[in-house]
Amino acid sequence: MTLTEVDRDTLQFDDAGLIPAVVQQFDSGEVLMVAWMNADAIEQTIEKGETVFWSRSRQELWHKGKTSGNVQPVVDIRVDCDGDVLLVIVDIKNHEVACHTGERTCFHRRLTT
Amino acid sequence: MTLTEVDRDTLQFDDAGLIPAVVQQFDSGEVLMVAWMNADAIEQTIEKGETVFWSRSRQELWHKGKTSGNVQPVVDIRVDCDGDVLLVIVDIKNHEVACHTGERTCFHRRLTT
Repeated sequence: MTLTEVDRDTLQFDDAGLIPAVVQQFDSGEVLMVAWMNADAIEQTIEKGETVFWSRSRQELWHKGKTSGNVQPVVDIRVDCDGDVLLVIVDIKNHEVACHTGERTCFHRRLTT
Repeated sequence: MTLTEVDRDTLQFDDAGLIPAVVQQFDSGEVLMVAWMNADAIEQTIEKGETVFWSRSRQELWHKGKTSGNVQPVVDIRVDCDGDVLLVIVDIKNHEVACHTGERTCFHRRLTT
């Protein structure tokens, strides 16, 4: 991975300065979670090689897994055709979880009842 | 698939009444695109069994592939732990594309230069 600088001109942040980031496990293809990044979060994600998000509820940068231990090492970061969504490809271990509920992914529920 | 009704209480729409929908190919795990849905789009997606989004640029419902032919038959719809993101699992054919650029997925570019 040669993530050296963010191509800011590529990115379309929303009015709050945020962009959604889809987090996907590199080998299984599991969509683990979706969170939000601002420019600082993207830069720290690249710098640390682990996901850093912007917590909309706490209004602060959030280094995923810093307290739980379930960090998300980054394999690649892709951007969509419109430049307004990121796809962050990570490699978490098989036994690790991405969701605060303890489930492997945040998408463990079906929509309908 | 037994999608009979939307559990509206589960869902957290944003101030514009929208929720992001990650579209994933069921077998390959490819993340094809991310678009937005309002309640009507979700209901039409369930009713048609094909993705229907809310176009933020055109401010209208958008039945994906209605003109291009690249519709997205829906296999399952999942909702994340916070109820503010949908994961729509689809089955498009191997030769079909999801991106308006003609690429298979909208995430064909790496973030960094």
